Amino acid sequence: MNPLIRSNVDRLHAYTPGEQPRDPEVVKLNTNENPYPPSPEVGRVLAGVTADPLRLYPDPGCTALRQEISRLHGCSIDQVFCGNGSDEILSLCFGAFVPDHGKVGYFDPSYSLYPVLAEIADCGVVPVPLQEDFTCPDLPADYDVPLFFWTNPNAPTSLSVPKTQIAAFADRSEGVVLVDEAYVDFAEADCMELALTRPNVLVTRSFSKSYSLAGIRLGYAIGHPDLIGALMKIKDAYNVNRLTQEMGRAAVVDQAHMRSNIEKVKATRQRVSAELTRRGFEVWPSQTNFLWVRPPHRSAAAWYDHLRQHKILIRYFPAERTRSHLRITIGTDLQMDRLLAAIDADGSC
Amino acid sequence: MNPLIRSNVDRLHAYTPGEQPRDPEVVKLNTNENPYPPSPEVGRVLAGVTADPLRLYPDPGCTALRQEISRLHGCSIDQVFCGNGSDEILSLCFGAFVPDHGKVGYFDPSYSLYPVLAEIADCGVVPVPLQEDFTCPDLPADYDVPLFFWTNPNAPTSLSVPKTQIAAFADRSEGVVLVDEAYVDFAEADCMELALTRPNVLVTRSFSKSYSLAGIRLGYAIGHPDLIGALMKIKDAYNVNRLTQEMGRAAVVDQAHMRSNIEKVKATRQRVSAELTRRGFEVWPSQTNFLWVRPPHRSAAAWYDHLRQHKILIRYFPAERTRSHLRITIGTDLQMDRLLAAIDADGSC
Repeated sequence: MNPLIRSNVDRLHAYTPGEQPRDPEVVKLNTNENPYPPSPEVGRVLAGVTADPLRLYPDPGCTALRQEISRLHGCSIDQVFCGNGSDEILSLCFGAFVPDHGKVGYFDPSYSLYPVLAEIADCGVVPVPLQEDFTCPDLPADYDVPLFFWTNPNAPTSLSVPKTQIAAFADRSEGVVLVDEAYVDFAEADCMELALTRPNVLVTRSFSKSYSLAGIRLGYAIGHPDLIGALMKIKDAYNVNRLTQEMGRAAVVDQAHMRSNIEKVKATRQRVSAELTRRGFEVWPSQTNFLWVRPPHRSAAAWYDHLRQHKILIRYFPAERTRSHLRITIGTDLQMDRLLAAIDADGSC
Repeated sequence: MNPLIRSNVDRLHAYTPGEQPRDPEVVKLNTNENPYPPSPEVGRVLAGVTADPLRLYPDPGCTALRQEISRLHGCSIDQVFCGNGSDEILSLCFGAFVPDHGKVGYFDPSYSLYPVLAEIADCGVVPVPLQEDFTCPDLPADYDVPLFFWTNPNAPTSLSVPKTQIAAFADRSEGVVLVDEAYVDFAEADCMELALTRPNVLVTRSFSKSYSLAGIRLGYAIGHPDLIGALMKIKDAYNVNRLTQEMGRAAVVDQAHMRSNIEKVKATRQRVSAELTRRGFEVWPSQTNFLWVRPPHRSAAAWYDHLRQHKILIRYFPAERTRSHLRITIGTDLQMDRLLAAIDADGSC
């Protein structure tokens, strides 16, 4: 223990991001990246970029990008916040909305970053266990927290709840309800309307999944101007770099490309869900770009190892509630065929 | 006042970054950007980049970049931290090293972001006034804080202190001494040795000034592995995007290009210092890429307005200690000739 370091940080177990293998032969189905390239408009931005303007600071207000996002959602620019990935936004929400040693809420299992962010901010947590089948329970009538992370669709479980359920909680909550919609473009419905009509709802979105741009680090939040204004005050002045602002804007403009990638992912999702079910896997009805499955015959950990030997990387979470399950990103059809072949090679399905 | 928002954030006056004018005719001498382009190696990275790999998350450990930086400073990779601009590092230091409502120190005037970061973190401040001539006083024997920001060379005053003075304070301090060396490549000496030998010294560097890369957002800290490890634990997993990692690495490798830009800036600095002195300006002996001056004949605010009318943007800080002075970034010789001509056009010098 080093007395220079805060005790909550000293004892912290950092968030473990999914592995980024160097071997190009590995089929990477472990971090929910999109298997299809981003919009050609992004390539056009890159082709037109020269090094010289990088001398200059980016626009601290991300004005052009926020304008384009506000147009997409039919709101004003002061209802839009841009972050260095939506992870940055989640982290800033502690500084903006959670009082000293306040407690934040989320479902368990859900995005494993939330409790880590709480430890970093030296806050408490009041996680709400999902039901046995991973659906959301009704939140107890006396449950309230200054900040609740409602991941919808949820990760790693791939399931959605209806907007009405979130609205009911938001309307009685005295805190901020952050609807983390990182995966929502792969779902049938979203909660953006709540962010545009409720004073205490933020909806966050990511460019990492549906826009195929995990590498540029860009996410945004939509919400009441007071909430957005608080985030603007506490962010680093130049939190989003020049190229990311330009590429993000190009990607938002090209909704058609993003939608067409999503249709491909959804078609593959349907096919692979059926194939895995046929092989004895229990497959949850996914609203995301990944599948949450309970594998047959052997433990999830053993399946993870088996697939790894076949150079297929998926995600295994060893915690109590998740250790019988696996999270499998939807890749291209070719990649998913390799997955199915590796499963069949096991001989037990 | 909105009860959803923390009171320290509600009452916060956000940091005001320097203006980013859209008019390309404006001579921009207000945010200490480098007037010369970054290394051609950065352009080569950009020319070779395609959009497809941006599908993938960046390396969360910034491994290749940190390796290159560790080589530059002759240290190990676990003594190197990379941030989304050095501003991000300054902000993370609160979460890593300052206890609840602890107090941080810095000289006044200095980088105006420090007190803003303290308000955001809901911390107190114990600023130490610079002397009348803007040199650093000896710190009182009983002065200590968990985190002290020692900007060296200092902004906006452009002056350096010797390493021995910082070492003496660090050796008796029980807190972390962060030597903010954003401008050090323009100075005659640096304090990197202290970061490599003291358990409580961090040195931060920026790619925004000497490397001509303000637009990519990249900074780094060097220090004891315990301090670096604490920052690694609390950072966002993917805080530095893919392209910034690659461009930063290319820039670090090409020290010769950076050094040659610096020599040009220093030559211009010397010439313009003499020209301004000849016109009655009091010019401090700059160790940075800007000049700290006290203008003659009329107020600093009036000079600022006059130059602005001539489409020359410099920086004016209206606080008590700084309002008789101006900060002028060193641009190209051509830009500085326009500055001098605009000063002469006033007719009073």
